[in-house]
Amino acid sequence: MFTIRHIGRIEELSKSERYSHADIETVGAIVEEHGRFMNEVFAPINALGDRVGLIWSPDGVTTPAEFKPAYHKFVEAGWQGVAAETQYGGAGFPMVVFAAAQEFMTAANGALSMCPGLTIGAIEALEVWGSEEQKETYLRKLTTGEWAGTMNLTEPQAGSDVGLCTTKAEPQPDGTYRLSGTKIFISFGEHDLTENIIHLVLARIPGAPIGTKGISLFIVPKFLVNDDGSLGEHNDVRCLSIERKMGIHASPTCVMSYGDDGGAIGYLVGEENQGMRAMFTMMNAARIAVGIQGLAMGDAAYQKALDYSRTRLQGHEIGSDSAGPAPIIAHPDVRRMLLTMRSQIEAMRALISYNSMAIDMARSQEGESAKRWQELGDLLTPVSKAWCTDLGMEVTSAAVQVFGGMGYVEESGVAQHFRDARIASIYEGANGIQAMDLVGRKLPIRMGGVVTDLIASMRSTVTDLRAAGDHLASIATNLAAGIDSLESTTNWILTNGAAHPVDALAGATPYLALFGTVAGGWGIAQLALAADAELRAGSWDTAYLEAKITSARFYAEQLLPTTAGYAAQVTSGASVLYEVDGDTLASI
Amino acid sequence: MFTIRHIGRIEELSKSERYSHADIETVGAIVEEHGRFMNEVFAPINALGDRVGLIWSPDGVTTPAEFKPAYHKFVEAGWQGVAAETQYGGAGFPMVVFAAAQEFMTAANGALSMCPGLTIGAIEALEVWGSEEQKETYLRKLTTGEWAGTMNLTEPQAGSDVGLCTTKAEPQPDGTYRLSGTKIFISFGEHDLTENIIHLVLARIPGAPIGTKGISLFIVPKFLVNDDGSLGEHNDVRCLSIERKMGIHASPTCVMSYGDDGGAIGYLVGEENQGMRAMFTMMNAARIAVGIQGLAMGDAAYQKALDYSRTRLQGHEIGSDSAGPAPIIAHPDVRRMLLTMRSQIEAMRALISYNSMAIDMARSQEGESAKRWQELGDLLTPVSKAWCTDLGMEVTSAAVQVFGGMGYVEESGVAQHFRDARIASIYEGANGIQAMDLVGRKLPIRMGGVVTDLIASMRSTVTDLRAAGDHLASIATNLAAGIDSLESTTNWILTNGAAHPVDALAGATPYLALFGTVAGGWGIAQLALAADAELRAGSWDTAYLEAKITSARFYAEQLLPTTAGYAAQVTSGASVLYEVDGDTLASI
Repeated sequence: MFTIRHIGRIEELSKSERYSHADIETVGAIVEEHGRFMNEVFAPINALGDRVGLIWSPDGVTTPAEFKPAYHKFVEAGWQGVAAETQYGGAGFPMVVFAAAQEFMTAANGALSMCPGLTIGAIEALEVWGSEEQKETYLRKLTTGEWAGTMNLTEPQAGSDVGLCTTKAEPQPDGTYRLSGTKIFISFGEHDLTENIIHLVLARIPGAPIGTKGISLFIVPKFLVNDDGSLGEHNDVRCLSIERKMGIHASPTCVMSYGDDGGAIGYLVGEENQGMRAMFTMMNAARIAVGIQGLAMGDAAYQKALDYSRTRLQGHEIGSDSAGPAPIIAHPDVRRMLLTMRSQIEAMRALISYNSMAIDMARSQEGESAKRWQELGDLLTPVSKAWCTDLGMEVTSAAVQVFGGMGYVEESGVAQHFRDARIASIYEGANGIQAMDLVGRKLPIRMGGVVTDLIASMRSTVTDLRAAGDHLASIATNLAAGIDSLESTTNWILTNGAAHPVDALAGATPYLALFGTVAGGWGIAQLALAADAELRAGSWDTAYLEAKITSARFYAEQLLPTTAGYAAQVTSGASVLYEVDGDTLASI
Repeated sequence: MFTIRHIGRIEELSKSERYSHADIETVGAIVEEHGRFMNEVFAPINALGDRVGLIWSPDGVTTPAEFKPAYHKFVEAGWQGVAAETQYGGAGFPMVVFAAAQEFMTAANGALSMCPGLTIGAIEALEVWGSEEQKETYLRKLTTGEWAGTMNLTEPQAGSDVGLCTTKAEPQPDGTYRLSGTKIFISFGEHDLTENIIHLVLARIPGAPIGTKGISLFIVPKFLVNDDGSLGEHNDVRCLSIERKMGIHASPTCVMSYGDDGGAIGYLVGEENQGMRAMFTMMNAARIAVGIQGLAMGDAAYQKALDYSRTRLQGHEIGSDSAGPAPIIAHPDVRRMLLTMRSQIEAMRALISYNSMAIDMARSQEGESAKRWQELGDLLTPVSKAWCTDLGMEVTSAAVQVFGGMGYVEESGVAQHFRDARIASIYEGANGIQAMDLVGRKLPIRMGGVVTDLIASMRSTVTDLRAAGDHLASIATNLAAGIDSLESTTNWILTNGAAHPVDALAGATPYLALFGTVAGGWGIAQLALAADAELRAGSWDTAYLEAKITSARFYAEQLLPTTAGYAAQVTSGASVLYEVDGDTLASI
C-alpha cells in the first residue's frame, strides 16, 4: 500500500471518472483481502503442485487434485475480474491494484497463477479488439474465471520470430474459419480447472502477405458455444503432449494440435491480417505480469530466507560475548544478501507500480495527456519485464544461498522458487527481445522525447532529495550518477541507432540492465522521500519508514554504482562480437 | 593444452624431479585420451542419470544401471590415480593436468564425477596424515578406484560451523575408537559402484576441547578390512535416507548414521584433536575441484548453446539480403551471450590452471620458494572455488537463455547443467565462507605480502601487453584499471580489517567477486599475450590464436569495467547492514 500510494498514485487515479470507485480505503481493503486469500488458499498447495505435477492423457490434462477446489474458490471470490471492465462483470480497478494482486497470487503459487494470468490476456485482447457479439459471448465467463483463456502464438519454427507462423485459417461461407496447425509452449492449453477454454490463436489466411503482416487472430473455443450460451460440441483441437520442465510443474505447457479432423472452427477477431496488433495488446499486459513474476517469486523466496536466517544457529557473532552459536542473520555476509534482496524487491515493485500507473493514467485521461502516459507505459514495459525477471533469478538464487545446503534440497521449498522463476526471463518475449524492443522500437518514440521526459522526471527527484537534507544526500549523489550514465548511453543509442542498428542492438541487453537499475533506483529513492516526509509529519511506524530509507541508501550507495560497468558494454559496438566465426568459437 | 602450457607452465614443472615424467607430449596424450574417454563413456549417461535418479532401500543406494559399467571402465583405465602418489599406484601427475581431467569428467557427468572426486579428497588426506599402515591398507584400493572415499563433516546443527560437531568417538583398549552420531549431506555416502567405501569422519573424543580444537579425524570403512586385505564385517554405519535435490540427481546425498548397533569401528588419522588440519587438506583440494565444476558445467552448457545457436533459424539478419530466417548466432544479442560465456570460461580456466600450478610448484620445489608458491595457492583457492562457481551459474543460465523456451524444457539437456551447477556455490564451504576465508585468513598471510606480490605480477603483465603493441592496448588499459581497484580495495581491507573485522567481512563477497574478475582478466590477458607471440612466430592455427585475443579484448573492454561497481560495495562498511532489525526486514 505504501508503494501503491506513493508510486502508484492511487489517490490521483481515484479522482478520475474511470477509477472513482478506487478510493484508498477500498483499495486497501481489497489488497489486504486478496493477500489473505492467496496466503490461505493458493500458497499451501504450491509445493504440492511442484511435487505432484500434471497427468496427460489423450482425454486431457489432470491438475493436482487440490488445485480445482482452490481455483473454484478463486472464481467464487471474484478475483479474476479485479481489473476487467465493469460492463462485462469486472471490478474495473486500475493496473496498480491489479499489480499488487498479481504479485500476491504469483508469490503464493506461480504455477497456478498462470491460468488466471493467461485469461487476463484473453480478456484484454477481446475488450479492445472483439466484436460486440464476441464480447457478449465470451467476456462474461472469462471475467468470472468460469472459462479460461490462452494465447497461441508459438510454433516449432516460429518462436521469437512470430512472422514464421504457418497455422492455416481457411475462410468458410458462413463467415467462420477452419484452422489447422500445431502450436507449442501453450501454457494451460488444456486442463481440468474450467468447463471451457477460449484459445486465442494466431494463424494465416491463404494468400495473406508473408511475415507478421499476414497474421490474423482467431477465437477457437475448446467447446463451441451455442446461441443460448450453453456448451456445444468439442472443437477440433486437442493437446498432444505436455513438456517436462525445470519448474512451474503444475502449469501445463502444451503442444496443441488444431484441425486433425477437418479443421477447428475459429472466429476472426478484428480484421484480417491485423493479428499482430491484437497480439501486442495481449502481450503488453502479459509482459508486465511476467515482470511481476520475477518480483513475486523473488519476494516469496526472500521471506523464506529471512525466516531461515533468524532461526538457523551457526557460527559465532563477531564481537559478541555469547558463547553459543548465533542466528546467521547476525553475520555481515548474510545481512548483505538480505538487504540486497530486500532493496531489489522494493526497487522492482516501485518500477512495476510506476509502469502500471502510467497505463492507468492513459486509460483514465484523454487527449495529449493520455497519449503521453501511454508512451511512457510502453517505454517502461520491456524494462519491467526483463529487468524484474533477471533480478527475480538473482533474488531467488540469493535466497537459496542463505539456506546453504538446505536450499538445494527440495524439502526447503526455496529451490522451487528458483526453478520456477527461471522461465520468466524466457517467455512472453525472451529478455533479449525485450532489450531489442526497448532500443529499436521504444527509444525512438517521439524522437527520443519519451525517454528524455522520463530522465527529466528522474532529475527532479534528485533535486527533491538534495532539498530534503544531508541524510538523503548519498541517494541523490548516486542516483544522479546513474542518471548521467542512463542519459549518456541513451544519447549514444539515439545518435547511432538509426545509422548503425547492429551496433545499437549489440548493446541492447546491458542498456536495459542499466535502464532498469537506474529506474528501480529512482523508484526506491521516491519511496525514501515519501518515508522521510511521513517521518517528518510524525505519522506511521517509525521503524518501517526508517527501513525504507535504509533500503534506498543501500541500493543507491552499493547497487547503483554497477551502472558504470554496463555503460562500457552499451557503447562498445558490434564489431568485436563478429570477429570470431562459429567454428572458431567452438574451439575454445 | 594451450592453457596448460602458458598458464600451467607444464614445461617448467616437468623440469622438476617430481614431475619429470610430465613432459608436454605425455601430458598432451593423456589429456586427449581422458577427454575422449569422458566423451564416450561418462557423457552419454549424464541425462539418463538425471532422469532416472537413485533408489534408496535399507540395504543401500542403487545408482542407475548404466553407471556401474561406466565407473568400472574408469577404474580399469586407471583414471582415478592421475594425480595420486606413485608410491601407492598413482600416476603422480601435477594438479594442472588433474584440473584438465577433472574438467572433462565434470563436464561429461557432474553427478557421477562426484564419486571419484570425493575419493581424491580421501586420498589426499591419507597421503598427508595417514600412518604407513593406514596408507598400505587403504591408499592402493582408493588410488585404483576399486574403493571409494567420502568426507563426513556436516551434521544437522553443524554446517558452516564445523566446530559444533557432536559425533562421538570413544577410545577402546585396542587403540581403535567406537563412533556414534549422525552426519548429513554426505555425497556418495552409500552406493553400489565400489566394493568398499572408506569414510573419513570428523568426531569428538570425550573430554576434547569445545569447538574446532577438539575435533579428530577417523577412518571408518563400510566393510572392515582384514589383515590380508580381504573384506570383513559390515561396520556399524548405514545410510538412513537420501535427499531429493534440485540437481545432481544421480549423486546420492546421504544421511549417515554411525553406531546404531554399539559403535562404528574407527581408526584415528594423525593425532587426537588435530582433525581440522586434516580436514583442510581434504578441503583445499576439494575446493579447487568444486571451482572446476563451475567451469566444467559452464563449458558443457556453452557447447550445447553454441551448437543450438548455429542451427536454430529465427529472425532476419539485419543488413542481410537473404529473405529467410537466419541462424540465431547471426543476431548481436546472441553473439554477446556467446562471447561473454566463452571469455568467462577461458578466464576461469586460466585462474584454475594458475592456482593448480602454484600448488604444483610448491610440491616440486623446496624451501622458501615452495613456501611462497604454497601461500599463493592458498590465497587463490577460495577465489577459484567461489568465483568460478558463481560464474558457473551465470554461464549455464546464459546457455539456457540462448535456447529460449527449449532451454526450460528438460529434453534439451541444458537445464540439467543449470540445476546441477547450483550446488557448487554452496558445498565445500558456501561462497560467503570462501569470501570470509579470503579476507579473514588469506589476505593477512605475510602481512598482505602474498597478495602484494600477486598484484606486482599482474602489473608486469600490463607492461608486457603495452610492449606488445597497440592491438593489445585496450587489454592493458582495462586490466590496469582493474588492478587499481583490486589494489585499493585490498589496501582498505588490510588497513581496516584488524581493527574493524565486521566492516572488512561486510565487503568480503564483493571483494572476492572483484578479485576473481581481475585475476581471471589477468589470466585471459596472459593467454592473449601467448597467442600474440605464437602468431608472430608464425605457428599454430591463426583463427584459433586470433580468437584468443578477441576473447581477451572482449573480457577486458566489457567485463573488467564491472569491477568499479564492486569497489563501492567492498569499502562501504557494515553499519548500513545493521540499521534494520529482523522484524522490520520482514515488513517490506
